[in-house]
Amino acid sequence: MYHVNEAKILEMEKFYRINLINSLIGYKSLNLLGTVRSDGVSNLCVVSSVFHLGASPALVGLIMRPERAHNDTLKNIKSSTYYTLNNVISTFYKQAHQTSASYPSGVSEFTECGLQEFYIKDFSAPFVLESTVRIGLELQQLIPLTINGTTMVIGKVVEIMTADEILEEDGNLSHTQAGSMTVTGLDSYFIPEFVGRLPYAKP
Amino acid sequence: MYHVNEAKILEMEKFYRINLINSLIGYKSLNLLGTVRSDGVSNLCVVSSVFHLGASPALVGLIMRPERAHNDTLKNIKSSTYYTLNNVISTFYKQAHQTSASYPSGVSEFTECGLQEFYIKDFSAPFVLESTVRIGLELQQLIPLTINGTTMVIGKVVEIMTADEILEEDGNLSHTQAGSMTVTGLDSYFIPEFVGRLPYAKP
Repeated sequence: MYHVNEAKILEMEKFYRINLINSLIGYKSLNLLGTVRSDGVSNLCVVSSVFHLGASPALVGLIMRPERAHNDTLKNIKSSTYYTLNNVISTFYKQAHQTSASYPSGVSEFTECGLQEFYIKDFSAPFVLESTVRIGLELQQLIPLTINGTTMVIGKVVEIMTADEILEEDGNLSHTQAGSMTVTGLDSYFIPEFVGRLPYAKP
Repeated sequence: MYHVNEAKILEMEKFYRINLINSLIGYKSLNLLGTVRSDGVSNLCVVSSVFHLGASPALVGLIMRPERAHNDTLKNIKSSTYYTLNNVISTFYKQAHQTSASYPSGVSEFTECGLQEFYIKDFSAPFVLESTVRIGLELQQLIPLTINGTTMVIGKVVEIMTADEILEEDGNLSHTQAGSMTVTGLDSYFIPEFVGRLPYAKP
């Protein structure tokens, strides 16, 4: 049995602690976050901190770290108020991972990583053509988390695009049908297999 | 191609929208959240809104809905300041799901759902014996999200317990080795298969 407490966690070598803490909570939602700068330069970065906030209104949250690459994304979200989340599938997960590299500001990760952007009417942010589940969001609120300098981004879902066969009769999306991947820690990628769907629980 | 915008989302039948919006972001981290009331009654509920906030300090966030069952959890977190997150594996995922039922206050979901609680020295909240990755957290901050009445709970990781064979040499936890499951939407459970681990990305 491996058991460590706070004192031991603080003593850990930096990258060991990063790997351990990042992998604690298990499988994480995996998406590509697309934005655009006012001069039209697009930006794309892989994110694993997206969480469901509520269905009515339809809200999604995510955490942005206080780092250079992410600041570009955050600046774009602030200035345009629109951004997209696009699922990652096995045919391009290496390109998706590559978007985490620190490209200079003004360089598009779409071009650098070999993914195609596309746009729809009345929505300024780029979607990922290769994705099979794509969400368009409108910024609602930015909450600075003073505890560690990160920023919580709350967005309202204003566009949903997917293939008909991914959408089930009751509104549920089949991520096995979509081919969506999931991630643990910083860099371990997985494809889930369906085990079961359970009925609404009553005491 | 299925494509809806905000107006269409607002018009949807309630449960259709709940299913759709809950499943948009893909696979979610799946954990059992354990707390205890001042009189010793334990509480357990399944959560899929946990996200990584930072490794130094080691911080984890989660969202609590403004509902009765969760309010018990939230009350316990406020009063004791300690809580636990425990992974869900296939041998007990039906019991884990059952903890989402609205049991009366003062009834322990451990007993009702057939899971075993255990305690360690100097940490008041209950861990799940059947889990293979267990985290003990100390409350740092509660952030009320006025946009929809939910509450963001930020906790510091102060205890980590897992089996030696789950911990890899570089600190990464193997959730395939742990048998951890993941969830989409409200009720679809999955076991992921490992695809690949990618090196740190450079431009």
